[in-house]
Amino acid sequence: MARRTKNILFIMCDQLRWDYLSCYGHPRLATPHIDGLAAKGVRFTRAYVQSPVCGASRMSFYTGRYVQSHGASWNGVPLKVGEMTLGDYLRPLGVQTVLVGKTHMRADREGMERLGIDPGSIIGVRVAECGFDPYERDDGLHGIGPDGRYDPQVPRYNRYLNDQGYAGDNPWHDWANAAEGQGNRLASGWAMRHARKPARVREEDSETPYMTSRAMDFIREAGDAPWCLHLSYIKPHWPYIAPAPYNDMFTAADVLPVVRSEEERSDPHPVFAAFMDLRASRSFSRKEVRDEVVPVYMGLIKQIDDQLGRLFAFMQERGVLENTLIVFTSDHGDYLGDHWMGEKDLFHEPSVKIPLIVYDPSSEADGARGSVCDELVEAIDLIPTFLEALGADPAGQSHRLEGRSLLPFLRGNPPAEWRRFAISEYDYSPLPVAAELGVEPRDARLFMVADKRWKLVQPVGFRPILYDLAADPNELRDLGADPACEGERRRLMTALNAWGLRLSQRTTRSEEQIRQSRGKSQRRGILIGVWDESEVAEELWSSYLGEPKQ
Amino acid sequence: MARRTKNILFIMCDQLRWDYLSCYGHPRLATPHIDGLAAKGVRFTRAYVQSPVCGASRMSFYTGRYVQSHGASWNGVPLKVGEMTLGDYLRPLGVQTVLVGKTHMRADREGMERLGIDPGSIIGVRVAECGFDPYERDDGLHGIGPDGRYDPQVPRYNRYLNDQGYAGDNPWHDWANAAEGQGNRLASGWAMRHARKPARVREEDSETPYMTSRAMDFIREAGDAPWCLHLSYIKPHWPYIAPAPYNDMFTAADVLPVVRSEEERSDPHPVFAAFMDLRASRSFSRKEVRDEVVPVYMGLIKQIDDQLGRLFAFMQERGVLENTLIVFTSDHGDYLGDHWMGEKDLFHEPSVKIPLIVYDPSSEADGARGSVCDELVEAIDLIPTFLEALGADPAGQSHRLEGRSLLPFLRGNPPAEWRRFAISEYDYSPLPVAAELGVEPRDARLFMVADKRWKLVQPVGFRPILYDLAADPNELRDLGADPACEGERRRLMTALNAWGLRLSQRTTRSEEQIRQSRGKSQRRGILIGVWDESEVAEELWSSYLGEPKQ
Repeated sequence: MARRTKNILFIMCDQLRWDYLSCYGHPRLATPHIDGLAAKGVRFTRAYVQSPVCGASRMSFYTGRYVQSHGASWNGVPLKVGEMTLGDYLRPLGVQTVLVGKTHMRADREGMERLGIDPGSIIGVRVAECGFDPYERDDGLHGIGPDGRYDPQVPRYNRYLNDQGYAGDNPWHDWANAAEGQGNRLASGWAMRHARKPARVREEDSETPYMTSRAMDFIREAGDAPWCLHLSYIKPHWPYIAPAPYNDMFTAADVLPVVRSEEERSDPHPVFAAFMDLRASRSFSRKEVRDEVVPVYMGLIKQIDDQLGRLFAFMQERGVLENTLIVFTSDHGDYLGDHWMGEKDLFHEPSVKIPLIVYDPSSEADGARGSVCDELVEAIDLIPTFLEALGADPAGQSHRLEGRSLLPFLRGNPPAEWRRFAISEYDYSPLPVAAELGVEPRDARLFMVADKRWKLVQPVGFRPILYDLAADPNELRDLGADPACEGERRRLMTALNAWGLRLSQRTTRSEEQIRQSRGKSQRRGILIGVWDESEVAEELWSSYLGEPKQ
Repeated sequence: MARRTKNILFIMCDQLRWDYLSCYGHPRLATPHIDGLAAKGVRFTRAYVQSPVCGASRMSFYTGRYVQSHGASWNGVPLKVGEMTLGDYLRPLGVQTVLVGKTHMRADREGMERLGIDPGSIIGVRVAECGFDPYERDDGLHGIGPDGRYDPQVPRYNRYLNDQGYAGDNPWHDWANAAEGQGNRLASGWAMRHARKPARVREEDSETPYMTSRAMDFIREAGDAPWCLHLSYIKPHWPYIAPAPYNDMFTAADVLPVVRSEEERSDPHPVFAAFMDLRASRSFSRKEVRDEVVPVYMGLIKQIDDQLGRLFAFMQERGVLENTLIVFTSDHGDYLGDHWMGEKDLFHEPSVKIPLIVYDPSSEADGARGSVCDELVEAIDLIPTFLEALGADPAGQSHRLEGRSLLPFLRGNPPAEWRRFAISEYDYSPLPVAAELGVEPRDARLFMVADKRWKLVQPVGFRPILYDLAADPNELRDLGADPACEGERRRLMTALNAWGLRLSQRTTRSEEQIRQSRGKSQRRGILIGVWDESEVAEELWSSYLGEPKQ
């Protein structure tokens, strides 16, 4: 019997660089279970996020739309009520759409109140959770400071830890993200000098195994009904701290050489300069920071790989592996000191490129297993892929969804025509950098437009940045002001400008509805520009030309 | 005591050309009451609609946003649930926002259902009526054909006519929009050859006086509470037919000379050519059609002016004229045969330019009464104007509202800096023209970008059209392919491209909220990029560095 996709397992890591997996070429970090998925799926080498920051990137994954289209352009910017999300597309197909882990969604409470949507209703919860049924929502950022909690929602994970005997109000921090310090004090994971110390939590109670178990709980409970499970790990995102043995599995010798040049710092573009000056960038520019932190970052990835091995075995055992389409990806990368940068935010490959592996269980995909796709792929391509894999026609949603289905690649039938440019965006208005650069909140935006060779970054109000990925794959030389590259810059700007003028908000009428509507008003009595009755068919006058009523 | 704005009367005509009013220079059509409003207000000479078609234009008036931003790009394209409208901005100020007449709003029923919004609830009605409380909604298009009614809602006006003794199922057509024909048959207003015949309805029962009376009913009932009344006439929109004496008030001798040239037809831009070939264009290109129809078009305008005289007198009597800001405008123009065109749709001045007169009752406006403003003004400027007139700060809504308040012009304090380009758009995908031109629904779009001298029209996928309004004020010569104008075209395209990349969807966070949020996560325990605890203030560690709980 032919295998086909019934369920979707959409696995996302947070801040996982594309090149920190052995299947993407990392020489020291073996990730056999992820590699195994690549071996039976397709591995994409040019997958870009729509924005190199958690919230904005994720809202593009979950809406299938560019950031400029959905508007939730940074962490904490609510996704407006009315934007359709993954769940809105899948539920009509009978697929329950469930979350375990992080989304970084901020609910548009003002919009919900304006529209009278009860936050406690099923619709209200889904609107607030960007379309997911939250089996377990946990953004993994349970910081507390002088002004209170960052995430007002206390996670179920804290209760779990308490139940396992980990004491305190915030065991997320005190056990899972802190080590034993000196003098009977905590060594907080927020201070990176403690990165190599083991977290105080037992490995099996740390965040990655916990979320994996929760995903297994869901799969167990879901039974036979089709589902889409978004398993969204917080790791290897900071705080960079891991439980034993993952804290100690790698050393500075295992870390990839840093990619940066003095030229980058000598006369940098002002926006790049401002980001190089951020605390995280300054920290990661130091060798000791990289030497201590990157090995732990690698350990956290290793732990994910081990947990995925556990999950895949569980699925195999239950017979769901053979009818579940599996995506493995990340919401953006991590500079880790490359280009004198920490964190993400800008558009160098370590930040904007993501690992993307898709396993299609269906028989039609058998011929493409283990293949590699070098086409330009975007985060917004996933929803159309899911729809097509489930037998629906994503073209019918092309008035909303801005990406394209990857299914042809998964089945070895690449389309004759594919996108020639990838777009990413970044809104830095919520960062103090914007004020330092003297840029108004509405103009503090960067655009990336890239083809397979060139990458242009256009900040509003500044000159562009340009990299030649063929001659300079490490992106060390900014050609944004080089007169020799004027033609390339113009070509890429033309593509970006065309993108800016695209249709993105006519979301209430499909292309097909529009085609079908043409010329129809005449048959409902709207007769425009007619001089004499004889110019149009007699039947159109049927209700107009009777005997007059007196 | 200083006068100030308490109420807003927002009068819109439908398809009224900017130059068919005596205050705008029409030599034969005296409109003394509208002129009187201009004499005590400000008359704008470069007011453009955001789209030269009813529905899209109106949704821009009602949302304060460009068509590309709100997405309701043509008649019948629903305005998506969640888009904020005039009423959403005014109600929090204690101003009831009420409709009498036409909006051309199509409710987003699918979106309402998805969000669980009860169409019968107050919120549901407002969402469906683009934010208005519908005192009387009537789009004035009650056509009936073989496929049924164009507007499923039977208007209250039909009941009114029946009550007055006008018989039949659709007295809107049979009495208000038809004349006596030959042989005891109706002469339908849909056939323009009947235009000069008197409509069968008594003048006082025709649409314009009826809607005026309904506005007066509302004002009477409203009492002392502040209001914003959108009085939205269907006329002088087709069917072009008027009751006596307005049917016979003007003759062909009163019609402005036609503006067109043989050059326009000799080698036209393909998009222009396709629109010149529409039935309405072919009809209005004939002298007999103009000679019969335009005098009636003028009569319908004259009737509006007379009715406004009645309304203003009523308001004067009740003392509300002195605290009501009054706008008089239109949703777009009418070619009436100029440029070999009928209807609207394209961007020549007769179509895209509108009359706009604003009377500000406040004492601060006394110095500017009767003045004329030649700046580039857009339909989206009205909501910010209303907000400022009512004492609110439109800048606080600049994350949603894309226009600017006109109040400084009304008060003789023009801002130092004003927009340098006006934008308008047109989506022709719902027209058979799109298929004839071989253009996909998503690409069947036109953009206009104009400054005070040049006007560029850029259809997606075609060469631009360009007019020099200084050298060629009648827009008879398309310079879109003239090599001498390359610089102007590039300059205007640069402006259009910048507009395309503008921020338009980050509507859930104000500029001020964004500024205030900067650097705040640190005080909620998110400490990014810290190596050593000493790098940040000790208080930030308060919840992290206690004695470990065992």
